[in-house]
Amino acid sequence: MTRAATPATPAYRRLSVEERRTQLLTAALSLFAHHAPEEVSLDDVAEAAGVSRPLVYRYFPGGKQQLYEAALRSAADRLELCFAEPADGPPTERLARVLDRYLRFVDEHDAGFSALLQGGSVAETSRTTAIVDEVRRAAAEQILVHLDVPDPGPRLRMMVRTWIAAVEAASLIWLDEDKCPPAAQLRGWLVDHLVALLTATAATDAQTARVVAALLSLETAEGPVGTLARRVVPVVGGAAHLL
Amino acid sequence: MTRAATPATPAYRRLSVEERRTQLLTAALSLFAHHAPEEVSLDDVAEAAGVSRPLVYRYFPGGKQQLYEAALRSAADRLELCFAEPADGPPTERLARVLDRYLRFVDEHDAGFSALLQGGSVAETSRTTAIVDEVRRAAAEQILVHLDVPDPGPRLRMMVRTWIAAVEAASLIWLDEDKCPPAAQLRGWLVDHLVALLTATAATDAQTARVVAALLSLETAEGPVGTLARRVVPVVGGAAHLL
Repeated sequence: MTRAATPATPAYRRLSVEERRTQLLTAALSLFAHHAPEEVSLDDVAEAAGVSRPLVYRYFPGGKQQLYEAALRSAADRLELCFAEPADGPPTERLARVLDRYLRFVDEHDAGFSALLQGGSVAETSRTTAIVDEVRRAAAEQILVHLDVPDPGPRLRMMVRTWIAAVEAASLIWLDEDKCPPAAQLRGWLVDHLVALLTATAATDAQTARVVAALLSLETAEGPVGTLARRVVPVVGGAAHLL
Repeated sequence: MTRAATPATPAYRRLSVEERRTQLLTAALSLFAHHAPEEVSLDDVAEAAGVSRPLVYRYFPGGKQQLYEAALRSAADRLELCFAEPADGPPTERLARVLDRYLRFVDEHDAGFSALLQGGSVAETSRTTAIVDEVRRAAAEQILVHLDVPDPGPRLRMMVRTWIAAVEAASLIWLDEDKCPPAAQLRGWLVDHLVALLTATAATDAQTARVVAALLSLETAEGPVGTLARRVVPVVGGAAHLL
């Protein structure tokens, strides 16, 4: 036999512990993203990662549940990164950019996102609900940062948390309706929803009224609030008899 | 021994099968209303009903899970009855009456309501989530009846379902914050929330715009929409530069 002209490269490279763990987690995440946890087996993860079932167990002795929770943890960290946005420019335009990234995340984790938030899954435990609640809290904190409220009162906190629940519900319906309307339309409507909710809450809460006044001074006629305001004028025209 | 002057009444009356079942269910419902399912044992139900554990099993061979699901079914039926409201008068005043009954239900089933909707409970199954979803659907249908929309488009359906999710989230926060603010204030804010959301959705959806026009014609200056409208005027005063 003649020696090969190029230096021999091993067909199989030994991965470090960390590399192997990441590889298994990546395989699990992509399976759990597009399937309900009930539909994913440990064999599926092993096959997707190109390794044996015992090897998966060596890294995740808790089996599928441990893999599911590790994948959820990793997805939650990625989602929280989507919320980061510089505090510059009109707040509703910052929100629109965050929502675009959020909806891309929902799009890329469709079936897993639905299974997680719809409830009733066998993979749901107090640990998985704690991770989901942590993401909700992180989202609420970011909104309050951009509304520039370091000390939100109960009404404003309830408003923000309620809007986040509405965004989750809208995302589930969006997935259920084959991602209709287009993500950009849904995002626009979710921004309008928050502006409307802020306005209605400002009617009975002094802190929210100050937040809305400060917000309006940062918005532009071409931005989401200006566009919404011009479109609402004819709608509320029929309310003259109520004033 | 002399005979008793009054006719002897048995200390223990035999209940019919249906009466006994109702008695056990009532005991279970009152326990599950104020405790997470994890905190309730079959012995607790037997003790509350004043019967033996084997008797509970005779009526509910599936044990605690079967009792929990039967209690949930019964609570869901009761909640759906709260939604019924004659289609007379200003729609937001009808909604206020329904929300008052709903919040009384939440108040009377506090810990059980939280445990059910917060997720992560071992008692949660595809059957329990199906019951919760059925109640949500019934709520959405009733709102569309009162908005007089027999053929809601996707945007209006999403709006109603999203608002229902917001109401659930607000209810959980309300329970979590020791039922503050008072129920009547929370109800007022939830009505304002729906009016605001309808208005914002009308800005980009023709069907919702027609619904809002019809709604405004039924409202009064003294009712929720008139009150909200007058309070919103100074809030949106700062938006003149956006028009």
